[in-house]
Amino acid sequence: MSMLARRKPEAEASPRVLRSLQATCHARGLGALAERIADLDGFIQDDLMQIESVLREIKTPDDVVGRSAQHLLSRGGKRLRPLCVGLASRLGEGGFNASARELAVAVELIHNATLLHDDVVDLGDRRRGHETARVVFGNAASIYSGDWLLIEALRRVHTADVPGVLLRLLSTIDEMIAAEALQLARRDELVADRDVYFRVIEGKTASLFRWATYAGARAGLLGEEECECVGRYGENLGLAFQMIDDALDLKGDVSVVGKDLLADVREGKVTYPLLVMLEAEPSVATAIEQMAGSGTRPEEGSSADEGSSADLETARRDILAALERTKAVEVTMALASDYAQRACQNLEALPPSLARSALEAVSEALVVRDR
Amino acid sequence: MSMLARRKPEAEASPRVLRSLQATCHARGLGALAERIADLDGFIQDDLMQIESVLREIKTPDDVVGRSAQHLLSRGGKRLRPLCVGLASRLGEGGFNASARELAVAVELIHNATLLHDDVVDLGDRRRGHETARVVFGNAASIYSGDWLLIEALRRVHTADVPGVLLRLLSTIDEMIAAEALQLARRDELVADRDVYFRVIEGKTASLFRWATYAGARAGLLGEEECECVGRYGENLGLAFQMIDDALDLKGDVSVVGKDLLADVREGKVTYPLLVMLEAEPSVATAIEQMAGSGTRPEEGSSADEGSSADLETARRDILAALERTKAVEVTMALASDYAQRACQNLEALPPSLARSALEAVSEALVVRDR
Repeated sequence: MSMLARRKPEAEASPRVLRSLQATCHARGLGALAERIADLDGFIQDDLMQIESVLREIKTPDDVVGRSAQHLLSRGGKRLRPLCVGLASRLGEGGFNASARELAVAVELIHNATLLHDDVVDLGDRRRGHETARVVFGNAASIYSGDWLLIEALRRVHTADVPGVLLRLLSTIDEMIAAEALQLARRDELVADRDVYFRVIEGKTASLFRWATYAGARAGLLGEEECECVGRYGENLGLAFQMIDDALDLKGDVSVVGKDLLADVREGKVTYPLLVMLEAEPSVATAIEQMAGSGTRPEEGSSADEGSSADLETARRDILAALERTKAVEVTMALASDYAQRACQNLEALPPSLARSALEAVSEALVVRDR
Repeated sequence: MSMLARRKPEAEASPRVLRSLQATCHARGLGALAERIADLDGFIQDDLMQIESVLREIKTPDDVVGRSAQHLLSRGGKRLRPLCVGLASRLGEGGFNASARELAVAVELIHNATLLHDDVVDLGDRRRGHETARVVFGNAASIYSGDWLLIEALRRVHTADVPGVLLRLLSTIDEMIAAEALQLARRDELVADRDVYFRVIEGKTASLFRWATYAGARAGLLGEEECECVGRYGENLGLAFQMIDDALDLKGDVSVVGKDLLADVREGKVTYPLLVMLEAEPSVATAIEQMAGSGTRPEEGSSADEGSSADLETARRDILAALERTKAVEVTMALASDYAQRACQNLEALPPSLARSALEAVSEALVVRDR
């Protein structure tokens, strides 16, 4: 952290994804990887600053829809998807040109659009440390601001005019919607189904990472076949990223773990650690259902009384013990590392380059992050 | 009606917009216009059948999102926007080619997408004589199926590959969202504001009609300047169409009028007849607010008790009397006719043709329709 404190003010504006990855590597004694990330910072910082500045200057409408979109956009976020576009574009001779910049901005807009719609569907109250747009501006504004960001993103992709990239984005959004539909269909079901789990995270997360890296490479004028490889890198990176997210949700302190676990279960999200635990110890489902059932909101009636608070504490402890015994979090982190490695293997067909090393470093650092 | 009964079964599949317009003209003794519509039927029927058949064959996903989209799409609707695309394409040498057909299908998909999102926002329960998709499949499915239809529409417009048409559609959707935002901001306000009224119907309705006619003309290879004229025709037609819709909502029997009026007010929709009435007799606002206030749903508490049912009946009669005195419905129909005429004037720069006559006939017939 002292290193960060010594930075000059203007450097503070540097996108947080790199600083965060670097700090993680330092904290874990991964000095060499931290060095590589530091190099990466120099290599890509200008590109990221450009993306950030375009994002900041987006003219949202002067109405409740615009304010709702701005509410989420201005909170930042990891900007990991734009980073993927930027680095992928640097693999080719075209580099980080105006088209790549537009595509990087677009992928962040798409990501934010899906968050705005998801929060309405999941009745999400908090995001990025603040109240969600739907809480502040209402569900209607949240829906329309998601629509607005989607349209703004598509306009930029159209203007970027990179062959094949717009049609692929439309298919990607279809995949994202199909994954949402699958998740809706499984809502409130506590079933350990690997096939469903992978279809959901493939559609919801990995498909947009695949598009981001493919589109970036394409904008950077890489050949079609190489672009496909870079797209597969993105897909595997996205899978790894989602699994780590799932695992980190369960690594906090006991009270937080309980809350996140229940929120996921209630939304029909059997995350990978949960899947591992349920496969190994199916009986833990009873404890999970007990806790999930107790989570009905007060105004929905007090049938939850049946589970006394002592019973709930027992259920919570049973779950945590099962998580511990089955090493569900560690198993998840290990599988995420596997996918991160596969991501790097997808780049082996490309000649060595600074951009390729950077993408490899991102993939390695992502699976050791702690937030 | 007897004329319709004599039609052969396969002709029954003919899109209802023409049959409905024709029946209206007959019923009103507008024999000449009915004849022109009959010619029009022969002229455009094949095109409309093609559009209908593509719409029927759209492969919606086999999940709750697909079923939600199909639920609305398969109910039909007037198909007036596709008709506009089809006729506009026939103005040019290109005629109703594959591109025009895709654009016609796309405009209907966009229209349906907005309905799916609007029903979630307005908590609409019924549409096209059936329960809305959000009632049958839930709000989440309704939101995502709107997203799906939007993406499917954009894919078709992209594939149609008509210069300038995709970017214009994205801007049109922006206009539609801005109009929704404006309506949201005015929700629950009973203010007679002409500027707001026109901005809302311009954005929500006229902009998509403008795009439909512009895009059709462009696909039919009309020159850029002529396409702009045809676009203005569409815009004025859309304004006329919306006003007639507003007027027809108030022409039913007394109980229906009361209900629709209140539904509109509650959603912040000061329609044109309401605007006319409020401008002429501002005091009627009290009666309207009284009835609107009584419409809170039972579970929201019984503060509505203050208005007894006798008071409400008085308020309803006051409103209907004011509608009568101010001739609000007739004034609205007259202004709609004005806009329909302006629409025809926008076509004067074009050489006479069957397609031009057909567009003129549509415009004339639209403002005498009774449903």
